Amino acid sequence: MILTVTLNTALDITYRVRSLRPHTSHRVTDVVERPGGKGVNVARVLAALGHEVTVTGFTGGATGRLVQEQLTAVPGLVDALVPVTGPTRRTVAVVDELTGDTTQLNEPGPTVTSAEWSAFQEAYEDLVAAAEAVALCGSLPPGVPVGAYAGLVRAAKAAGVPVLLDTGGEPLRRGVAARPDILKPNADELAELTGSHEPLRATQDARRRGARAVVASLGAEGLLAATPEGRWRATPPARVHGNPTGAGDSVVAGLLSGLADRLPWPDRLTRATALSAATVRAPVAGEFDRPLYEELLNRVTVTGEATAA
Amino acid sequence: MILTVTLNTALDITYRVRSLRPHTSHRVTDVVERPGGKGVNVARVLAALGHEVTVTGFTGGATGRLVQEQLTAVPGLVDALVPVTGPTRRTVAVVDELTGDTTQLNEPGPTVTSAEWSAFQEAYEDLVAAAEAVALCGSLPPGVPVGAYAGLVRAAKAAGVPVLLDTGGEPLRRGVAARPDILKPNADELAELTGSHEPLRATQDARRRGARAVVASLGAEGLLAATPEGRWRATPPARVHGNPTGAGDSVVAGLLSGLADRLPWPDRLTRATALSAATVRAPVAGEFDRPLYEELLNRVTVTGEATAA
Repeated sequence: MILTVTLNTALDITYRVRSLRPHTSHRVTDVVERPGGKGVNVARVLAALGHEVTVTGFTGGATGRLVQEQLTAVPGLVDALVPVTGPTRRTVAVVDELTGDTTQLNEPGPTVTSAEWSAFQEAYEDLVAAAEAVALCGSLPPGVPVGAYAGLVRAAKAAGVPVLLDTGGEPLRRGVAARPDILKPNADELAELTGSHEPLRATQDARRRGARAVVASLGAEGLLAATPEGRWRATPPARVHGNPTGAGDSVVAGLLSGLADRLPWPDRLTRATALSAATVRAPVAGEFDRPLYEELLNRVTVTGEATAA
Repeated sequence: MILTVTLNTALDITYRVRSLRPHTSHRVTDVVERPGGKGVNVARVLAALGHEVTVTGFTGGATGRLVQEQLTAVPGLVDALVPVTGPTRRTVAVVDELTGDTTQLNEPGPTVTSAEWSAFQEAYEDLVAAAEAVALCGSLPPGVPVGAYAGLVRAAKAAGVPVLLDTGGEPLRRGVAARPDILKPNADELAELTGSHEPLRATQDARRRGARAVVASLGAEGLLAATPEGRWRATPPARVHGNPTGAGDSVVAGLLSGLADRLPWPDRLTRATALSAATVRAPVAGEFDRPLYEELLNRVTVTGEATAA
């Protein structure tokens, strides 16, 4: 079982309107709802690839119940969310049909009490004991200490379970010092962590800060990996047009899927790159265009070299 | 018991953002949720005035359950919503903190099947038999026949229960022909119904089309009433600044409250005008500023004359 942690789960709502004009009234022509939050997106992609996945994090209120109902309907996915008093947040993406652009409104999420945070940590330790890999994904809700991911990384390592961290800002800075097995920053997160806008240098620097392996996601330019086994760059054959939301989450899913299948790093990077591009083509995060994914598996270019043994 | 009918119930969500800019991402700083739909607003105001109120209409899905939970928490209010398969709609009002302006996003609501509409009509007839007055409020959800209100008006009249209609467009045109006791159009609805933008003439014309009494709500200019007992104009002492959403619903609540208390028309109009202005001062529809309401009761001006007996 692969465990994904989403401390700030969400119900992602997508509204289509003809044209968004501030300070007017709009009739929404289409409503789509999906369970969301980065780790939930990762879990949905992993489940679609045939892995057994357990989702943990927090759930609260009516929105939380709705997220749980939708999660348990996904084959291969187990809901192990921990209850909190505050309501799970909604995110609303308003898609303008005329321009194709999206306006995003994100609720802040519940404030987690220290008792709730303690209850989560206990549940997490039990879940980690049964996991083959763990992904820690996304922002922290109000009330969760900024060093939260550092503690969760250490608990996974103590249990001997590989742990991937995908977050930003101070939680990333604290988390990397706890020596996660894989760090998956995007270009902005990497630059903020290291102070360098030069990805090759920055991935090296992130390793020096504690991560065993760093895989930076550089959007349409693919992935840049610095690992103890070698350094590689994985590139999709062409830019895919669509909705980039969730592309980074699919990189995480591809890396964990390859780890669980004991693939060498170049094959993990190929899988992650193909999944990410196929997610851009899908309408929502946590989903991917399967025919495109399978086609891209043969067309991703990986260059680089293994470290001398 | 006063019965209010809201065929298109809603969960009204209000988001505050610092400044709404299309095609960017926003952190919502404050989230407020209220059960909504025009008849629900009317019911909440009536309950706050001390009346026993029953709410009917449709409820579906997780949003419907949330609406029902919140309704049953209101003292004096009974939930008699009829279940449908489709989900109750949400409305999202995005308040821009810089300008104070609101951008509205309204989901379409569930599609009601003919079996669901029949079940509602049966439940309605039972409820009407126990009611002292009925209010039919707001738009029709998809699937409900455009002549729906005409049938509901006729059923109330057959039961000998006074019925007020507050809607627009074709449902209003059909409904007025069924001879409701009170019609409560706003200036736009009245002009659309009668073709006249001259309110005095238009209220008379709406009576000729079938309404026993017509009370037009003219925003800050107050109310214009044409009834078998006489014609009046009710005017608040000064313009109240605030959020006009729900002001019309509070007019309906004031008229029904006065009817239930057997007040003469001028006193009903005073109550409705004061409630409406006090609702503009409240942050959300279905609520009112009680000290302002009580102060305005003594300061509303009613002019006009009773019909010679």
